[in-house]
Amino acid sequence: MSPAPRRRQLTADDYFAGVRDRNLSVFAQALTVIESSSPRHRPIAEELLTRLLPFTGDALRIGITGVPGVGKSTFIEALGMHLVRRGLQVAVLAVDPSSGVSGGSILGDKTRMNELASEVNAFIRPSPAAGTLGGVANKTRETMFVAEAAGYDVVLVETVGVGQSETMVCDMTDCFLALMLPGAGDELQGIKRGLLELADVIAVNKADGDNRKAAELAARQYHTALESLTGHDREKAPTILTCSARDDAGIEAVWEAIETKCQMRRDRGEFIDRRQRQNLRWLWALVDEHLRRAIHTHSAVKQIYADIEQQVLLGQMPAAAGARQIFAALGLE
Amino acid sequence: MSPAPRRRQLTADDYFAGVRDRNLSVFAQALTVIESSSPRHRPIAEELLTRLLPFTGDALRIGITGVPGVGKSTFIEALGMHLVRRGLQVAVLAVDPSSGVSGGSILGDKTRMNELASEVNAFIRPSPAAGTLGGVANKTRETMFVAEAAGYDVVLVETVGVGQSETMVCDMTDCFLALMLPGAGDELQGIKRGLLELADVIAVNKADGDNRKAAELAARQYHTALESLTGHDREKAPTILTCSARDDAGIEAVWEAIETKCQMRRDRGEFIDRRQRQNLRWLWALVDEHLRRAIHTHSAVKQIYADIEQQVLLGQMPAAAGARQIFAALGLE
Repeated sequence: MSPAPRRRQLTADDYFAGVRDRNLSVFAQALTVIESSSPRHRPIAEELLTRLLPFTGDALRIGITGVPGVGKSTFIEALGMHLVRRGLQVAVLAVDPSSGVSGGSILGDKTRMNELASEVNAFIRPSPAAGTLGGVANKTRETMFVAEAAGYDVVLVETVGVGQSETMVCDMTDCFLALMLPGAGDELQGIKRGLLELADVIAVNKADGDNRKAAELAARQYHTALESLTGHDREKAPTILTCSARDDAGIEAVWEAIETKCQMRRDRGEFIDRRQRQNLRWLWALVDEHLRRAIHTHSAVKQIYADIEQQVLLGQMPAAAGARQIFAALGLE
Repeated sequence: MSPAPRRRQLTADDYFAGVRDRNLSVFAQALTVIESSSPRHRPIAEELLTRLLPFTGDALRIGITGVPGVGKSTFIEALGMHLVRRGLQVAVLAVDPSSGVSGGSILGDKTRMNELASEVNAFIRPSPAAGTLGGVANKTRETMFVAEAAGYDVVLVETVGVGQSETMVCDMTDCFLALMLPGAGDELQGIKRGLLELADVIAVNKADGDNRKAAELAARQYHTALESLTGHDREKAPTILTCSARDDAGIEAVWEAIETKCQMRRDRGEFIDRRQRQNLRWLWALVDEHLRRAIHTHSAVKQIYADIEQQVLLGQMPAAAGARQIFAALGLE
């Protein structure tokens, strides 16, 4: 028996052409290389990304968060279909901090969005499966660039609000949308305080059937609360609306609110600025991540850091003394 | 003429004894050594601090923030005097991110608090004058430990809300108080969103004379707003009150709110946990700061990083590629 014909290893040239022509098979393979944590793939991923970067930047990048149960998939499907019907091409990406831990993703997979998944002008990619949160998020960010270079007009980056994931998604997008559950009075769910820093638009979903009144009341309460807190600064305060992804109601208004926030940023000259600052923050966040990993695997540091941590934790050693010893062990100039 | 007698250089032993006995002259010199950024002082500072650490931990550590004009000095003087009259010994420290930049401190100096400054049981130390914010804050944190070892019962750490200074002060204290200005309706000042993450107690100051009603209205509005946002979680939501530092009214209630928050943390077993986590965060934050400084002075990195930053900023180079190059130049194993 002769061996099965071995598929030729694609080159950066092949991937580049495949992405730009949106050859779906090559495009998918390119994303696998981009998301790969194998050192073998890194040089080709880096070359590909560098060549694709000049063709990125035209898409709107929208972050979307919400607790499990808020109807995120249904909402994204409704929003995605709305955009597709407008003639836009939509990519949906996920940052899921749990996917590396459990081996499976709590965001599920593309089968969640059947209608959108079958659209030729839409593209859904679940979260890369491994790595630190920064690493996972950075892979999603790079996937976003590849999707932009392939001509997608809108990238929706979804996340569950676990740990730093919302901050990281906010830091790769132009506008950040928080989906909330209806509820009012004592049942009004708490907004995670950190979310207030991030959200440009807050949409109370499930404003349908029996929940409609509760959703509207919740929206009013959020509105009053945030108005008090942000001192009526309309540009700073998040826009608050209700919608029903199930009934496909109010989705357009949410999209208009997002577009308005983006336009406000453009008018104030902040849009490009924000992206450039994001680029720099990612650079140094990744350097930090490299260093943090290096510190914990550096042989001289490995011998001492657990002991130093314990002493500092218990207040037996000043933090500055511990830091100096760890740093000295690194042997930098 | 014979030369003036040269003062003997004090040893760590001398400083240790002076701090523990609260010999005010030696105590002050010990703080100068602790705050010094001179490499000559570092070993003695480290030894002193290590020896003093076992005698720290009994004080309550309270962070206080508020914009210029909110009456922070008047408030701290009133609170400090209130505590002194209760028989407590009070240290007031400042983290002022501007002090390193301008050479002068916008928090001013101890002459702001004449009455408290003349109290034998109170001690006021302005912000150390130089270094990065983390460095300045860490010196204040170490000064706090020295003050605790000298027997002060309460440490008030004040800051203006510039950049990361509030986060850093929150991260060295047991309870965080935000002072707010009165104002209502359209004049209600915005709460910086990040502050909501930090504040355990919010006090609307200047609730006196013509401002009284406005202050009370503001407090009610903050209360309603925060209740909506935190979903009526009493333990999580900040306590909100009014006070008048000028008229010395409501100061006791603010202190009781602070004590209640601290007691709640103790009851839930979070008090010590919080301090231990703070210790660890300072350790790694200081390692990060060392590294960040080292990166920017490392000769191989210095040659490349400005160019890499520019390319990443403009989207000509992927952040991951830039990070890899910077990291490689460090030559770590």
